[in-house]
Amino acid sequence: MPIAPKALLFDVFGTCVDWRTSIARAGEALGQRLPLPPTDWLAVADAWRAHYQPQLESVRSGQRPWTRLEVLNRESLDEVLRDFGLDAVPAVERAAFNRAWRQLAPWPDTVPGLTRLKTSFIIAPNSNADIALAVGLAKYAQLPWDAILGAEISRTFKPQPATYLQAAAALALPPAEVLMVAAHNEDLAAASKLGLQTAFIPRPLEHGPGQTSDLRPEHAFTFVAHDMQDLAAQLGC
Amino acid sequence: MPIAPKALLFDVFGTCVDWRTSIARAGEALGQRLPLPPTDWLAVADAWRAHYQPQLESVRSGQRPWTRLEVLNRESLDEVLRDFGLDAVPAVERAAFNRAWRQLAPWPDTVPGLTRLKTSFIIAPNSNADIALAVGLAKYAQLPWDAILGAEISRTFKPQPATYLQAAAALALPPAEVLMVAAHNEDLAAASKLGLQTAFIPRPLEHGPGQTSDLRPEHAFTFVAHDMQDLAAQLGC
Repeated sequence: MPIAPKALLFDVFGTCVDWRTSIARAGEALGQRLPLPPTDWLAVADAWRAHYQPQLESVRSGQRPWTRLEVLNRESLDEVLRDFGLDAVPAVERAAFNRAWRQLAPWPDTVPGLTRLKTSFIIAPNSNADIALAVGLAKYAQLPWDAILGAEISRTFKPQPATYLQAAAALALPPAEVLMVAAHNEDLAAASKLGLQTAFIPRPLEHGPGQTSDLRPEHAFTFVAHDMQDLAAQLGC
Repeated sequence: MPIAPKALLFDVFGTCVDWRTSIARAGEALGQRLPLPPTDWLAVADAWRAHYQPQLESVRSGQRPWTRLEVLNRESLDEVLRDFGLDAVPAVERAAFNRAWRQLAPWPDTVPGLTRLKTSFIIAPNSNADIALAVGLAKYAQLPWDAILGAEISRTFKPQPATYLQAAAALALPPAEVLMVAAHNEDLAAASKLGLQTAFIPRPLEHGPGQTSDLRPEHAFTFVAHDMQDLAAQLGC
């Protein structure tokens, strides 16, 4: 049995919120407001997300300076709209669509689970979202964070070690007293290597019904839970 | 009438919480646990706080690198205990006494006022407290922050411009859309000079019944309110 953690850090996109159907829904609303060709908005969401890792890598590698995720997302959107023949979307609507990343629906267990966990632990996102994006999303989805940690504190992106270590340092806690919660094996493997405790929560619908990755834990994580409520139960909340 | 702010930033020590009587109460508990000489614990609280600005100035001036407030407070405590003839306090009790800064009582209007303000605005501390201290205090005093901003983001202390400007930047907001709330004229004057909106809330008992400073606003601030509830009412919450 590991020592009791004092703080829980959470991946957000996929782990706490369902970005794919939320972005698709915002796209559908856009398609109803504007005279656009028929569009598969789930495919738009997937294509937009496909730009995510290459964009982050440009910062992680040092190729470009620290840039907020919202700015990277906005750049990617232009490419996605062009690829889908949606060049007619005006700039003001692009800005609004980009803000849909602040309006993602939580999985049904997320808010009740976080609310239970908050009674016993410090809870904070350790996401690649910048602070403004994470705060906006928390207000929308009612995520009851105690603090907003993550990429912007370290000015790089996960899975760079600095993002995990500086989140723990910001709480003045040693890594062993911090538990990283995520639906992604790579995220948790990076955290584990640095001495953080880990909890895997599968989100088998993050990428839709055909998802093939992250369906199960691929390493020896500290906890494996069905969902946030199960994690709260396992941690005695 | 200024434009509506999107976020409210708050000074914490004095503005949101009553540090003086809370620290004195923790000192009294210490005096009951240990065989110490009779001690005026309100005077200890005042003496401890008197070390605050000189300690911050050592970082603001560049004389020493960024250091968390909790570390500065712990250093100051050794000097205060020596000055009061309390050298007998062992290290473990000094560490516990230092953590009393995470256990300060909110003024009666603080939590209900912040709860109202949170329905319409992003609310965050912009304090000289480090993140760990601010999170611990928020958990104890039930301060419902949306994010923890402040000195640690800028790695210097108020009233340095960077602390205000980087708090606004972390929210991706221009200074004019951010309202700084404080019980201290100097804090608000610095914020105002940078283009932030300002709200003065007098806390005439922060330094005890003999307080002579910050009893009234000394500049043209955007708002002057009796307390947090009055501020919420003025802002239409």
